[in-house]
Amino acid sequence: MATGSASRTIGILSPGDMGAAIGRMLADAGYEVATVLAGRSALTRTRAEEAGIRDAGTIDDLVREADTLLSVLVPSEAVSIANEAAAAMARTGAKPVFADCNAIAPQTVRAIAATIGGAGATFIDAGIIGAPPKLGGNTRIHCSGADTSALESLAEAGLNILVVGPEVGQASGLKMIYAASTKGTTALWTELLVAARALGLGDALLVEFGGSRKQIADDLTGVIPSMPRRARRWVGEMEEIAKTFDDLGMTPSIMQGAAELFRFVGETSLADQTSREPDPSLDAVLGTLAERLHDTR
Amino acid sequence: MATGSASRTIGILSPGDMGAAIGRMLADAGYEVATVLAGRSALTRTRAEEAGIRDAGTIDDLVREADTLLSVLVPSEAVSIANEAAAAMARTGAKPVFADCNAIAPQTVRAIAATIGGAGATFIDAGIIGAPPKLGGNTRIHCSGADTSALESLAEAGLNILVVGPEVGQASGLKMIYAASTKGTTALWTELLVAARALGLGDALLVEFGGSRKQIADDLTGVIPSMPRRARRWVGEMEEIAKTFDDLGMTPSIMQGAAELFRFVGETSLADQTSREPDPSLDAVLGTLAERLHDTR
Repeated sequence: MATGSASRTIGILSPGDMGAAIGRMLADAGYEVATVLAGRSALTRTRAEEAGIRDAGTIDDLVREADTLLSVLVPSEAVSIANEAAAAMARTGAKPVFADCNAIAPQTVRAIAATIGGAGATFIDAGIIGAPPKLGGNTRIHCSGADTSALESLAEAGLNILVVGPEVGQASGLKMIYAASTKGTTALWTELLVAARALGLGDALLVEFGGSRKQIADDLTGVIPSMPRRARRWVGEMEEIAKTFDDLGMTPSIMQGAAELFRFVGETSLADQTSREPDPSLDAVLGTLAERLHDTR
Repeated sequence: MATGSASRTIGILSPGDMGAAIGRMLADAGYEVATVLAGRSALTRTRAEEAGIRDAGTIDDLVREADTLLSVLVPSEAVSIANEAAAAMARTGAKPVFADCNAIAPQTVRAIAATIGGAGATFIDAGIIGAPPKLGGNTRIHCSGADTSALESLAEAGLNILVVGPEVGQASGLKMIYAASTKGTTALWTELLVAARALGLGDALLVEFGGSRKQIADDLTGVIPSMPRRARRWVGEMEEIAKTFDDLGMTPSIMQGAAELFRFVGETSLADQTSREPDPSLDAVLGTLAERLHDTR
């Protein structure tokens, strides 16, 4: 147990893959970790229990008990959970620190900050880069805002917390831009490799890559097999990146297209796979997606 | 002079950077190389003369004299030059082989093939990957179609001619897909790096790349300084790739966005640079583009 952490209660909304992993690290380090399980699936309940996350009952109970709330959700739920938390703060008079850790655009997070600030609580912008964290892992939790100390203190549980700057929007912006570089590139390369397959040009393309671009092609195609099982979740994230670019005055189309590509992948049976099964081969992924083109044309 | 090549006359439409380089290789190898210079700029006339490409006079004269016509233009002019050539064939009764070497979508090239076929001439689909060719260089000219022998024979001039398959659309398709992997990726990475700069996150992003993604980031960002001077030309090519993907039943948005990004770059003074000047630094490119965002917001 880390020194001085026993008195801290952390609320996690909600204990999905990412939220439960964070909760487990905090619970293992001696933090009290709670959530709201009403209406959640049996899987979520089991995952919370295994991670040492207890059910606080209602959102009002959670807001009353928690020193810090971590919002860790799919992007589309980020605004509504912040609204619920702000309403609970108004009803209860409790003002826990609220850290939004979701993959959302800076302008979305600034709107959430206004809501939480309006309820009188401290707001922290955060962005998670990497897999669900574990002790000794490489996942980074970036944060920004006027006072990020509540999140920084969780580093004693082994979380890798990095302060990006003083402004709400910076941590989210970094998350968006980094995800554009990884998932956006994966979307483009998936599309062009499926096109090559559909046009019978897969081998000719490999020959073209064979020279100076072989290493880069290997790197960029190597991540495709693990993409389909995450494609449905990535749609909303790509749309938030599109908003980020649009708000800066640049085209949203590239990342809107990435969202469309992942939506297309998500419509295939490839997306039903879970992380507990071995990933399909690159060849199988491209073959299934090219077949799907023929089916829908 | 290559054996048996002296009797061959090649028409090139038109002698831009790429067309003139091909013409020079053919002329150096003993081919008769001609074009139509009426209405062309002084630069184009000088370039043609230096490359050993003579002025045939009119398109009818060129069609009468040439054994093979090579169409090497910006994508937006590919259809109209093919229409002009087909009309000249109809007027003169001459039927030179017509090879379309432009960066255009398979469906665009199939429409051109129908026009040329309707005029009674043999059509070859071709796609050029690499810089304007020179002896000992690495530029590849892919071709496809029922009879590609007329283009294949130009290998004796040192051109690197590769047959992709028997169908019109395959060579263009390969060009489109390869260009998506290079220029499309460059568009996405330019956009995300400009966003990082605009949000004051450039250094934080570099730290994120610092680990496992450093090599790939270096590779993908290293090509950005030479992009702005070519950005205006690339807009039409990105739109043709968008059409290629759309025709297959996949989203055109990613590549439409790439076209928009290059259009945005083309509106800056960066795009006025020529290949005879040293390229700006990556830092200067990103700085200028981020400034432009502030100007237009």
